[in-house]
Amino acid sequence: MMFEAAELGRKVSKKEFERLEPELRTKLLETQRELAEAGIPVILIVSGVEGAGKGEVVNRLHEWLDTRGITTSAFWDETDEEREHPTAWRFWRHMPERGKIAIFFGSWYSGPIVERAFGKLSNGEFELELDRIASLERMLAADGALILKLWYHLPKKEQSKRIEADRKEDGRNTLDVSPFTKKFAKRFDEFAAVSERAIRRTDTGQCAWRVIESTNRRYRDLATGFIILDALRRRLDSEAATPEPPESHDIEIPDLEAARLTILDRVDLTERIEPEAYSRELKSLQSRLNALSWKAWERKKTCVALFEGWDAAGKGGAIRRVNRALDARLYRVVQIAAPTDEERAHHYLWRFWRGLPRAGHITLYDRSWYGRVMVERVEGLAREEAWRRSYREINAFEEQLCDHGITLLKFWMHISPEEQLRRFREREQTPHKAHKITEEDWRNREKWDEYRAAVNEMVAKTSTSEAPWTLVAGDDKRLARVQVLRTFVEAFEKALA
Amino acid sequence: MMFEAAELGRKVSKKEFERLEPELRTKLLETQRELAEAGIPVILIVSGVEGAGKGEVVNRLHEWLDTRGITTSAFWDETDEEREHPTAWRFWRHMPERGKIAIFFGSWYSGPIVERAFGKLSNGEFELELDRIASLERMLAADGALILKLWYHLPKKEQSKRIEADRKEDGRNTLDVSPFTKKFAKRFDEFAAVSERAIRRTDTGQCAWRVIESTNRRYRDLATGFIILDALRRRLDSEAATPEPPESHDIEIPDLEAARLTILDRVDLTERIEPEAYSRELKSLQSRLNALSWKAWERKKTCVALFEGWDAAGKGGAIRRVNRALDARLYRVVQIAAPTDEERAHHYLWRFWRGLPRAGHITLYDRSWYGRVMVERVEGLAREEAWRRSYREINAFEEQLCDHGITLLKFWMHISPEEQLRRFREREQTPHKAHKITEEDWRNREKWDEYRAAVNEMVAKTSTSEAPWTLVAGDDKRLARVQVLRTFVEAFEKALA
Repeated sequence: MMFEAAELGRKVSKKEFERLEPELRTKLLETQRELAEAGIPVILIVSGVEGAGKGEVVNRLHEWLDTRGITTSAFWDETDEEREHPTAWRFWRHMPERGKIAIFFGSWYSGPIVERAFGKLSNGEFELELDRIASLERMLAADGALILKLWYHLPKKEQSKRIEADRKEDGRNTLDVSPFTKKFAKRFDEFAAVSERAIRRTDTGQCAWRVIESTNRRYRDLATGFIILDALRRRLDSEAATPEPPESHDIEIPDLEAARLTILDRVDLTERIEPEAYSRELKSLQSRLNALSWKAWERKKTCVALFEGWDAAGKGGAIRRVNRALDARLYRVVQIAAPTDEERAHHYLWRFWRGLPRAGHITLYDRSWYGRVMVERVEGLAREEAWRRSYREINAFEEQLCDHGITLLKFWMHISPEEQLRRFREREQTPHKAHKITEEDWRNREKWDEYRAAVNEMVAKTSTSEAPWTLVAGDDKRLARVQVLRTFVEAFEKALA
Repeated sequence: MMFEAAELGRKVSKKEFERLEPELRTKLLETQRELAEAGIPVILIVSGVEGAGKGEVVNRLHEWLDTRGITTSAFWDETDEEREHPTAWRFWRHMPERGKIAIFFGSWYSGPIVERAFGKLSNGEFELELDRIASLERMLAADGALILKLWYHLPKKEQSKRIEADRKEDGRNTLDVSPFTKKFAKRFDEFAAVSERAIRRTDTGQCAWRVIESTNRRYRDLATGFIILDALRRRLDSEAATPEPPESHDIEIPDLEAARLTILDRVDLTERIEPEAYSRELKSLQSRLNALSWKAWERKKTCVALFEGWDAAGKGGAIRRVNRALDARLYRVVQIAAPTDEERAHHYLWRFWRGLPRAGHITLYDRSWYGRVMVERVEGLAREEAWRRSYREINAFEEQLCDHGITLLKFWMHISPEEQLRRFREREQTPHKAHKITEEDWRNREKWDEYRAAVNEMVAKTSTSEAPWTLVAGDDKRLARVQVLRTFVEAFEKALA
């Protein structure tokens, strides 16, 4: 799922590229100079799917940056001398001096990922390697290094296409197809799973990963440039002893149509269900869920489900349809509103730990711990450092639930802005619904784009194989309810299988 | 070795205790009030060897602190409800509110340590648990919690004595002997090894462990009180928006004779060797080492040795005696002086990674990465936060060397202040040695006590089973050389066995 956010078909036209490139280059060079003065060492990790063109990216960076301030090291084959030293030695040899940028083509990630994908490392060994990496990065960051980690992603089909094209070109290797590409392509899915785990495990606030969609070369390179520029500027600004007025901080990341494509755009909001089919389906799903929930209770299989979504997207209605399928002894709904005094006096996850169900029971969270990376982020209620850190905290929390055998369901109720407007208007005009629409709802609506960006990042960073997000197409309420119930039924069936 | 620093026989007399207790209590209460105002949550972990009197300590704290601001939770048996939730749930239930102190009697450490000591967890599983603990603590600390971890240590003999005494008292359990005490006592050594690993792995700058010698109850309690007071004060001072003049910060930790006992006091400096025996031994050891070093070269067994010690303690002389045993092709001496510009532009460990030998070779470091926790600490060249962090960085670095199969030897050349004075004087009066004694040496000598404290902490925190410190009795130079050479010979024999 994490990589789905990088399979959206983002593109930049030749014309757009030519318009934006000169400015980007100028700014990159300027920033690089400031970086040298500030004495910040930068480690730029270039990794990702074979065939995505990592080599081309490195070449592009050589073209864009002042080469006197960068060193590039490729870590693929190992010398005798490197083998004779502890693994980390080869990386220490190439660490950048303060003020310089070291581009690592391949890195400390490559070894563990490849070995795990080919089954040469056990899962436990792999996790330990990831821990070692995390502590190495933490150590370097504590010493002042900026570590930028870029992951270049290509959909499976696109990778095959490139290999095919390469083959046709009569043995000539293009830059994005190496001898490894074919060997690794056979294990595309293993690589995807292992890489996702590595990225999630080491995606910390201080050393964050950025996944870059690489199907379109122009988009790939431009995104790379702007991401680097943005990260360097942020760091330089935070270094500045006297905070400057905010306008001077902003990087004008150009408003690329491409960059605004998000994973939500993939949800098909046009589908509809007939009222009759709906009644039939609903009834059948509810009775199956009821039976399953009792079986789960007997076998002590616990379930936690959370509902997030746009205002008026139908969270409440969906939750009620689930409740009706369940015996009141078995479930509890926890409404998450502004925290109480007591909750505020604890870590933000404390209130969610409190609400966890006993064995065999079900808790439905109406809004959840994801508030931190949505409303708290967008409304500025949590510092950036804090909400960025929380992706990892949330993943660790959910991992503990899944490890304990709890079935975790996460729903994002999605609607179009047009449908939201229609519902808002309708609520205003219906006396018994008027209380449901407040000034705040209208204010939130104005921040649609900001929320959209937050949701996209949230889904990309927290949709894991054990606890994936279900994106629910909500423009048709009935269809949404059926989708939610079906997800419950399938999850229970799987847990009880 | 870590626990040796807590087996020195520290004691506090009844009179001293009565003198110090009232002031300590007053200050603790004052500080607790400030803590509540500042809204800092404190987690105080009380753990350690069975029989060390953890229960008594908790009772004492209840006596000393305002009980309205503390909650105590004992984690030993597990309720049904707790078993039905992920492991961390039981701890989350008892997390302190901002401004309160939660005393955890037992904690997230108890489970993994006990299970590992009884072999129910594999080593890999244990390491993963420790990682989870470290990230939980990191998360809580990032949210503003102060986590204080106290480990109460008892020597094996003392533990048996207490169990014996308890048995004689006709079945009556005293507070420090529980049914577990006897069961766990049988595995004292496993517990010591496992606990040492846990403490080392999770002893971070932010959440540091303090090991408290517990044989003498008065010392144990007083040390507890002052350690808590000191930690709370430091945190409150760092919170204070406007830094106050430093004098107001200082806690007067009373100058207990007991507290100044260090691990170095155990080195017997009175031993001597006869010149004749010395010549014979030296020759024999050197020729054995020579043969062993060639064998090691053939078998690609690498060795890294480092020498630290007081000024004029005989480091140079000892290194030369080792060199004479070795072929110049096989070894290299790296002198660590003030860092070069290039070295200063990198992480402080970078220069040491650079100096590592190839397979089958030997590097002798004359002074080493331990400079950070000695001279840089004492002279204020590194911030406290930085040198505290480095214990863990150093342990991780050395772990990588040992994992790679490198033999790592660490020598601390120890002499008495009187012997140092004698040598300084002698150097001043000997023309060809006069250059060896500088103003700086005299200045360092004035800071003897500070260095002593730093060395003690260094040895306690970095002496691991794979890379222990060798404390060399240096008042007799010849004896010191023999001890160094013998350590080399034995280490090579072990590596080649």
